[in-house]
Amino acid sequence: MAIRSIGIISKPRRKALEPILPALLTWLRQRGIEALLDEETASTLNSRATSAGVTVLPRHELATKSDLILVMGGDGTLLAAARGAHECQVPILAVNLGSLGFLTAITVEELYDSLEVVLKGKHQVEQRKMLQINTLRNGSVVETYHALNDAVLNKGAISRMLDFEAYIDGQFLTLIKADGVIVSTPTGSTAYSLAAGGPIVHPSVDAFLVTPICPHTLTNRPVIVPDSSRIEIVVKTEAESVFLTVDGQVGHELHHEDRIVCELSPSRIGLIRPLHKGFFEVLRSKLKWGERGER
Amino acid sequence: MAIRSIGIISKPRRKALEPILPALLTWLRQRGIEALLDEETASTLNSRATSAGVTVLPRHELATKSDLILVMGGDGTLLAAARGAHECQVPILAVNLGSLGFLTAITVEELYDSLEVVLKGKHQVEQRKMLQINTLRNGSVVETYHALNDAVLNKGAISRMLDFEAYIDGQFLTLIKADGVIVSTPTGSTAYSLAAGGPIVHPSVDAFLVTPICPHTLTNRPVIVPDSSRIEIVVKTEAESVFLTVDGQVGHELHHEDRIVCELSPSRIGLIRPLHKGFFEVLRSKLKWGERGER
Amino acid sequence: MAIRSIGIISKPRRKALEPILPALLTWLRQRGIEALLDEETASTLNSRATSAGVTVLPRHELATKSDLILVMGGDGTLLAAARGAHECQVPILAVNLGSLGFLTAITVEELYDSLEVVLKGKHQVEQRKMLQINTLRNGSVVETYHALNDAVLNKGAISRMLDFEAYIDGQFLTLIKADGVIVSTPTGSTAYSLAAGGPIVHPSVDAFLVTPICPHTLTNRPVIVPDSSRIEIVVKTEAESVFLTVDGQVGHELHHEDRIVCELSPSRIGLIRPLHKGFFEVLRSKLKWGERGER
Amino acid sequence: MAIRSIGIISKPRRKALEPILPALLTWLRQRGIEALLDEETASTLNSRATSAGVTVLPRHELATKSDLILVMGGDGTLLAAARGAHECQVPILAVNLGSLGFLTAITVEELYDSLEVVLKGKHQVEQRKMLQINTLRNGSVVETYHALNDAVLNKGAISRMLDFEAYIDGQFLTLIKADGVIVSTPTGSTAYSLAAGGPIVHPSVDAFLVTPICPHTLTNRPVIVPDSSRIEIVVKTEAESVFLTVDGQVGHELHHEDRIVCELSPSRIGLIRPLHKGFFEVLRSKLKWGERGER
Repeated sequence: MAIRSIGIISKPRRKALEPILPALLTWLRQRGIEALLDEETASTLNSRATSAGVTVLPRHELATKSDLILVMGGDGTLLAAARGAHECQVPILAVNLGSLGFLTAITVEELYDSLEVVLKGKHQVEQRKMLQINTLRNGSVVETYHALNDAVLNKGAISRMLDFEAYIDGQFLTLIKADGVIVSTPTGSTAYSLAAGGPIVHPSVDAFLVTPICPHTLTNRPVIVPDSSRIEIVVKTEAESVFLTVDGQVGHELHHEDRIVCELSPSRIGLIRPLHKGFFEVLRSKLKWGERGER
Repeated sequence: MAIRSIGIISKPRRKALEPILPALLTWLRQRGIEALLDEETASTLNSRATSAGVTVLPRHELATKSDLILVMGGDGTLLAAARGAHECQVPILAVNLGSLGFLTAITVEELYDSLEVVLKGKHQVEQRKMLQINTLRNGSVVETYHALNDAVLNKGAISRMLDFEAYIDGQFLTLIKADGVIVSTPTGSTAYSLAAGGPIVHPSVDAFLVTPICPHTLTNRPVIVPDSSRIEIVVKTEAESVFLTVDGQVGHELHHEDRIVCELSPSRIGLIRPLHKGFFEVLRSKLKWGERGER
Repeated sequence: MAIRSIGIISKPRRKALEPILPALLTWLRQRGIEALLDEETASTLNSRATSAGVTVLPRHELATKSDLILVMGGDGTLLAAARGAHECQVPILAVNLGSLGFLTAITVEELYDSLEVVLKGKHQVEQRKMLQINTLRNGSVVETYHALNDAVLNKGAISRMLDFEAYIDGQFLTLIKADGVIVSTPTGSTAYSLAAGGPIVHPSVDAFLVTPICPHTLTNRPVIVPDSSRIEIVVKTEAESVFLTVDGQVGHELHHEDRIVCELSPSRIGLIRPLHKGFFEVLRSKLKWGERGER
Repeated sequence: MAIRSIGIISKPRRKALEPILPALLTWLRQRGIEALLDEETASTLNSRATSAGVTVLPRHELATKSDLILVMGGDGTLLAAARGAHECQVPILAVNLGSLGFLTAITVEELYDSLEVVLKGKHQVEQRKMLQINTLRNGSVVETYHALNDAVLNKGAISRMLDFEAYIDGQFLTLIKADGVIVSTPTGSTAYSLAAGGPIVHPSVDAFLVTPICPHTLTNRPVIVPDSSRIEIVVKTEAESVFLTVDGQVGHELHHEDRIVCELSPSRIGLIRPLHKGFFEVLRSKLKWGERGER
């Protein structure tokens, strides 16, 4: 499919973006490609640049009108963009403005080369699965979320240990006494779950992770289940406050006996692969794994 | 020193206490020992029992007027009692009303035998060191705490990773990017620090622990320093909320560039040893370490 | 398929087996089922019992002549039986003579009930995937193994740290500096990999685990890859001895530049499910996960 | 005390040493300092250099005749030198020929500056405590070792899990089911114990670490005890081979019911402090802890 319009989403007013954005808009205009900016990204431009044939749209309309989303920022910017784009199947090209991200592994230097490859249709798209999270209160769904990384149930700062019950496909898994619990996709395995002691799961493994945060039962270990599973976490704590956070960005407070139900989302995110970097190479760089010697 | 008065502190309105307290008061009266109750514990008694020669005092006066403090509850009740008693050097006899605690290893069944031993002066007291925590803002001390277990810097439920700098005796130790950080006594090593991945430290080791909570730098490990050290943790996070919690019970919010300074407290807590249980035996029971086979 | 013959494999000369085996043979004879014993198991019987219409065979012939293999012992006995049975597709009923095993979750008390269900054809069989391990020296395969649990590369007792390179589908994963490395099936995730810090992987997840043992690079974490992957581990250590052990039982020494190639085996093991115990229930029992309170 | 003679110990025939050693000998001769070489180090020199007024001695005589030991190599070379020097109280200056070591933090570039400071008597010596390890069989001591880092009980490459009992001052600590167990000084806490999951212990903490290696009981955590403790580890395994390794270099096989008794050694090692690097700075470099940003 030919790319006629590119939606640009960035972390707004980010200093690193200022010199890049006008040049990028010129580059796109020269190739006859329409640039769509969300309102926040547009705010980075001064008025003259904006007037030069750029369309500004609310974030939630951007994905429906773009053939490609160009995310400029870190993993957090991408996660926010993914929440807006997940229903549209628009592929995302994610460029990192700062230090390398697990999801935003393309550097600013590689921006134009990567765009050229995409415009020629020679790019590869990696489909990343998502979690669908339903929050239930008294048996009724009160909220639905889609996560590329994870759903986190966490205690407040001055709370003490929380109690949860975990069920897989209706089967009781275990009582979790912990600071919290993370339900994660393979994509999210290198995010918060890793800090909580979880393993690294290749994005193409068809599985979800259930990782306890600081479990008081020391034998409670991360559990990996097929992504066809229905994972339920029930809040058993009565006195303490419990919060659900999705992809580190949205969520709400939960009460005693509330439950979250996590399943495979029908949505996917299509991430455009970096030209010369595989998953393991990004992993090695981020984790500062020592390089192999000469062979 | 002869025991003439015993201060009794319990988790108020605790069901398990109701049948025990009146009998205990009678037992003490028969031996000519004055029973001092804090207001909350007294609320467990009905009016008739209270009238029978029991003195009721505010919690903060209890320690100064007692020759012994009898704590009835769990580790949390003891920690609260220790905060009130730490300046008075009154020994504490800690009885667990529910499941075994690390600090409250004496069971209700062992209550009267333990009291008999104490009244005869044949008990052993174990001195537990405490942490003194000063909170500094703009270079001035704003709060001072004494902790038997730990001082915890933690993020709010919806916050993201925090940044701290840690210094030991003025020397830069490391930048900590984590959910939080725990500064703990050996006594606290079996509390929150253990859940965060810290080691078990025998109470007689002259050391403090600095344990990161879910560190994003995976090489950040728990660090043990001499308890003559001055441990400083500086909040480097700007946008996120950070909370200090002392012994899981008191504390306050911290801001960017606030720091906590942790040193050995001049106070000690004298815990009366269980009759037949050593530290390692309590440890094995709590952690469900398998028993040794026949030898 | 009607069960006409049952091969019996046990840990030989095991005391617990002595009172059970003669009764079992009588029970089978009464139902017209032929009992096949391997030589070691038969050695447990005294001569009179053996004469009573029991066929004794070498272990490697047992699987080809049986409609069902009955394993009596622990997980180790099952792993050995699986190596003999993996090409024949004969289902295995595994009874534990001692403490509960992850793979041998049926107790002696449940033996006859379980057999009844199997004879009526009302049992469920769980297919467990296996690893195929080829050892390469100078580019040629020198040994081939099939593992239900894992392939372990380990140092000798007085050796020091080993160096390995790991590749996934020909892509360099990482240099591993460690005591060793475990390549494991989901079934093996609750065996040695768990002790080395790996996660618990449900047997139905289509993945393999690569778990380092005591990695000196602290950021080296367990990695989970799809079971369609080709995992190669190359020995880079020159001076130290390196040993391959398959399922904790067979293997050989490896030299500098030797490599093991691990892939999905074409063989499966059909384990007969315990009547009333799911995977998570066995997990909870083995790991002593606390039970859920009343709901 | 004036330095009149310097004993030089290096990893023999190490390439990096060849250009350094002759220049160093000249430098010492010009200052009237006698150079003593052990036989292995001398083998690095060609005959002409050796003839130039250098005394060659067996390793075990070197420490008794030197006012200072200069170790050139890595941590392993230092550990070997420490075993020879521990009874003589001769201070050690440790220069690293390759990558930075925890114990050998002085680089070749800093060699002469460091020597100048030592000759002027302006250096600081850090006393490091050692472990004394007695091996007992049938109640009699069969071997005695002194360790700067650790005593390790480990399984052979093809062995399975081992069983140990651990006692502290005669009190039963726990049954350890594991690949092995490490008894370590604080100095050794950054060596093998760290890879096995142990904490970082500052060298001035008066404590020893007991760290299990791949424990099958997941609640078995590293335990820190005062260095006044008597730590006993008893081999309970019957069938498997168990090896004791001291500082990764010497040791022997142990049998069922053999025990090692670890106590504070009367010996110390005096390490000369690097000029401009504290313990935490070396730690940060070795563990690749990210640097603090600008303040």
